[in-house]
Amino acid sequence: MASDVERLTAQVVESFADAPDPRGRQLLSDLVRHLHHFVTSNDVTESEWEQAIDFLTRTGQISTSTRQEFVLLSDTLGVSSIVDLLTHSRTPQTTPSAVLGPFYTDGPPETAQGGDISQGVAGTPLWADILITDTDGRPVPDAVTDVWQANKDGFYDVQLPELDGPVLRGRLRTDEQGRLRFWTTLPAEYPIPDDGPVGQLLQAVERHPYRAPHLHFMISAAGHQRLVTQLFVKGGHYIDSDTVFGVKEGLIVDFTPRVGPTPDGRAVDGEWRSLQFTFRIARLADGPAH
Amino acid sequence: MASDVERLTAQVVESFADAPDPRGRQLLSDLVRHLHHFVTSNDVTESEWEQAIDFLTRTGQISTSTRQEFVLLSDTLGVSSIVDLLTHSRTPQTTPSAVLGPFYTDGPPETAQGGDISQGVAGTPLWADILITDTDGRPVPDAVTDVWQANKDGFYDVQLPELDGPVLRGRLRTDEQGRLRFWTTLPAEYPIPDDGPVGQLLQAVERHPYRAPHLHFMISAAGHQRLVTQLFVKGGHYIDSDTVFGVKEGLIVDFTPRVGPTPDGRAVDGEWRSLQFTFRIARLADGPAH
Ligand SMILES: [Fe+2]
Ligand SMILES: [Fe+2]
Repeated sequence: MASDVERLTAQVVESFADAPDPRGRQLLSDLVRHLHHFVTSNDVTESEWEQAIDFLTRTGQISTSTRQEFVLLSDTLGVSSIVDLLTHSRTPQTTPSAVLGPFYTDGPPETAQGGDISQGVAGTPLWADILITDTDGRPVPDAVTDVWQANKDGFYDVQLPELDGPVLRGRLRTDEQGRLRFWTTLPAEYPIPDDGPVGQLLQAVERHPYRAPHLHFMISAAGHQRLVTQLFVKGGHYIDSDTVFGVKEGLIVDFTPRVGPTPDGRAVDGEWRSLQFTFRIARLADGPAH
Repeated sequence: MASDVERLTAQVVESFADAPDPRGRQLLSDLVRHLHHFVTSNDVTESEWEQAIDFLTRTGQISTSTRQEFVLLSDTLGVSSIVDLLTHSRTPQTTPSAVLGPFYTDGPPETAQGGDISQGVAGTPLWADILITDTDGRPVPDAVTDVWQANKDGFYDVQLPELDGPVLRGRLRTDEQGRLRFWTTLPAEYPIPDDGPVGQLLQAVERHPYRAPHLHFMISAAGHQRLVTQLFVKGGHYIDSDTVFGVKEGLIVDFTPRVGPTPDGRAVDGEWRSLQFTFRIARLADGPAH
């Protein structure tokens, strides 16, 4: 029996022998070894495998241009975070990266220095004062920075069909000093979309579907490697049990409560928050791009 | 870095600790270990992982009630055959099993002893004389036997939209002596559907998409375990490189060429084929059902 399995695994691996791309050949061969080992060492039954096939099929079928259920699956199984760890390990002297998540949309509204990406939606005002430097601490000017986040109820704009166009998203550029300032609102914790196969899986294993509150950043600058990351609200809910395993120590930041005068003189009733952070990004010369 | 990965893997496994079903907990925990190990030991990049997500998504999206691309993927990676080996290892004294494949449809037309499941489609006539016994060689009467196969051009009925209803499918029952006789046509080799993601994968690694010619059987009898298997045409094309790794030594059978009188006196012009085979199926008492 064991030798039958080994013979079959060898036969499948051999079937990739003529693959012209050596990396593809390596990945497929090793994927097959891992899959066969998983199935064999757990003595997976036909009925269990049929359930797995059905699960994967439904996961693909529920996916659309605004909902990527396989990304959710990869996230909730921690695989996205592993890939992210591997990526960051290539440039260890930079700010830690974090997963892209399913809610990024390309081409967010261009936002001026000091602008407001919230477009007036309700929430606690948040002033962000960001510095972007290279790994030697030198400011990076003209770094294109996409920011996106959930609102005070934990929804992204793409989940709110009544919204007309992008909200709580912006594309900003650092000034000559590598600085970036903008207004937004304090992001709330939110459940990942849990009315699909991934939600059913989480329910079956009695896991909650919540992400700790965070702001997404994607930073691209000429001559530098792209950084995709998130800043987490210190003291926020689910910081210790983020359902996609995205929280890293170095990304938990004070979103300091304030009252009174704001940095740019904007009038705010009651509490607002202040976020200060310095991102360190890698030069292309610092290591292999990914 | 290594310890970061190990910590993350442990954290994800721990997230299943409250799963009420121990088997589900075991499978998910070990799946996560295997996935994380695969990704880490191959240093999978973000771009490679995005390609994998995209591939899985398209594989789900092309699937319909008559096309199951994830079954094809499982088949072409040999995983279905591994699951099948595990299943058969529970009843080693029976006829080897083989994968169900994507073309089974439940409730095929009831066919009388000696009937013809080909419904007149063109092809070399094939007379099948089948005996079904238990593992002690005792005939099994009233065994419900579903048969299905491709036509002479390698197509199943569900792939031919111009057909009105099932063709080359039948449901027969063994007589008191455990015998089953029927007419059909000689099956041809055929490519698995290769216009989707799985076909693209095979092309990228320069693998052909062909299955060796075969007849499918599913045998169900009261007090016995179900047997799903295939009989392969000895000397047929692709017997040594079946794209779903379904061929087993004990399932390669003579489909003997004949001319002249047929067993039931049916008039046949030119060549016909004769298939004789004995299936040995397990009693429920022989081992765990699956
Ligand atoms: Fe998010
Ligand atoms: Fe088949």
